[in-house]
Amino acid sequence: MAEEVSYHRRHLPEETCVSFSSAQGVIIFKRALRANTMGPYFALAEQFTTQAEPAYCGLATLVMVLNAMAIDPKRVWKGVWRWFSEELLSCCKDIEEVKKEGISLAEFARLARCNGAACDVVSGEDSAVDEFREAVLANATGRHGDRGGPCCEYICCNYDRRALGQTGQGHFSPIAGYDEVEDLVLVLDVARFKYPPHWVRLADLHLAMAERGYALVSPGVDAVGGGGPALGCEGGCLLEGYDREGRRLGGHHKKSCARCGR
Amino acid sequence: MAEEVSYHRRHLPEETCVSFSSAQGVIIFKRALRANTMGPYFALAEQFTTQAEPAYCGLATLVMVLNAMAIDPKRVWKGVWRWFSEELLSCCKDIEEVKKEGISLAEFARLARCNGAACDVVSGEDSAVDEFREAVLANATGRHGDRGGPCCEYICCNYDRRALGQTGQGHFSPIAGYDEVEDLVLVLDVARFKYPPHWVRLADLHLAMAERGYALVSPGVDAVGGGGPALGCEGGCLLEGYDREGRRLGGHHKKSCARCGR
Repeated sequence: MAEEVSYHRRHLPEETCVSFSSAQGVIIFKRALRANTMGPYFALAEQFTTQAEPAYCGLATLVMVLNAMAIDPKRVWKGVWRWFSEELLSCCKDIEEVKKEGISLAEFARLARCNGAACDVVSGEDSAVDEFREAVLANATGRHGDRGGPCCEYICCNYDRRALGQTGQGHFSPIAGYDEVEDLVLVLDVARFKYPPHWVRLADLHLAMAERGYALVSPGVDAVGGGGPALGCEGGCLLEGYDREGRRLGGHHKKSCARCGR
Repeated sequence: MAEEVSYHRRHLPEETCVSFSSAQGVIIFKRALRANTMGPYFALAEQFTTQAEPAYCGLATLVMVLNAMAIDPKRVWKGVWRWFSEELLSCCKDIEEVKKEGISLAEFARLARCNGAACDVVSGEDSAVDEFREAVLANATGRHGDRGGPCCEYICCNYDRRALGQTGQGHFSPIAGYDEVEDLVLVLDVARFKYPPHWVRLADLHLAMAERGYALVSPGVDAVGGGGPALGCEGGCLLEGYDREGRRLGGHHKKSCARCGR
């Protein structure tokens, strides 16, 4: 009988991270709340989730923001309920492949668009720290121009954990708020079995995204209200097994997707 | 082709519930935070989860508080990680039975004890509203006597949704905080596909528990620190397939549990 190594969580590195529920974390949270720089927090906190598989960080991050935007998946999850969960995101990329290798930032964006969101990607190499701070502050204070209220845009970061002193490598998680006093962002880490949510220096997170980047996700034009189908996808991969109203069909899996072209 | 009825969430009844992320919900939250009556909030918010099956509200509630107390399940969830998830709670009651009929408050308490927690049950018929308010306030302000800090006790309510004007019937969810000004409690409803977290009047929730009740869950004596096994169970049902250190065995399912006697 072989013994297997297993872990009950990991300690957050103290030099770079402050745990959300620690005394210091609560002080930062209250300060940022008073400063009105926690715009995305409430809708994201309602959807905070644990990635269901070790390579599902991208899917779990996308599930959080799709549900935070209240986008209707137009297909049933379980029972009578339409609801985004990772297993529903077997679309542009087969979920069995995702289980093995995860998703790239480009694949994250395609999946977001196929599921009713608009998504702009900023690659790490094109992003100066000041521009990232500007994007975070605009997001945190709800200044989204013509995009709507404070809960209508979410920043999803694709970064290298090593640059934050954490174990592991490529990871996805959304940002839930900003503390201007210490220049910190709140990362709702979806690998909750490993690390609790934590505050990190914005500059550290920016550096950690150098070879990856981040995505700005907001509701797609058809996602909220209106009479048309909520989903960006034109009825291809996304609506596998369902008609445009979300009712079940007996049909085959149609692999091509009109929006993303895969 | 039969059409199937399905739902994308339900609207919260406005007479009885205030959504957590609504403008009014945020006002209440900030007020309660300033009043230091949100003791359990931070650790619970870190673990907020969606029940994986329509009848898993009790299991999901228990998973939230076990993880909030950082109890080590002493067995592997997925990959190398030990972590409480509903499928790990197939113990005193077979999870396939739970899937069909859910759990009672007594079964909830047994499962809690088998998984490293202490659990006191207060039945609805024995609970006056003033006593319930006292328990909530003590919990919200962290006055737990000899039980430890503010995150060391959680109130899990077993109630009838109909008394809150909600659709559905028996349900479980934990309480994350209290607003003394309007006498409201924050319910982190684990059926997130249906209702968002919400503030309800304490008296309404008390009434909704009349034929059920609530559980006070705290870490068991062996659950934190110390050299012994973290779990209350003596190696019976709980440790199915694992030795006392959480390592996998090839053994059979042992049905009897020394602690709960089932």
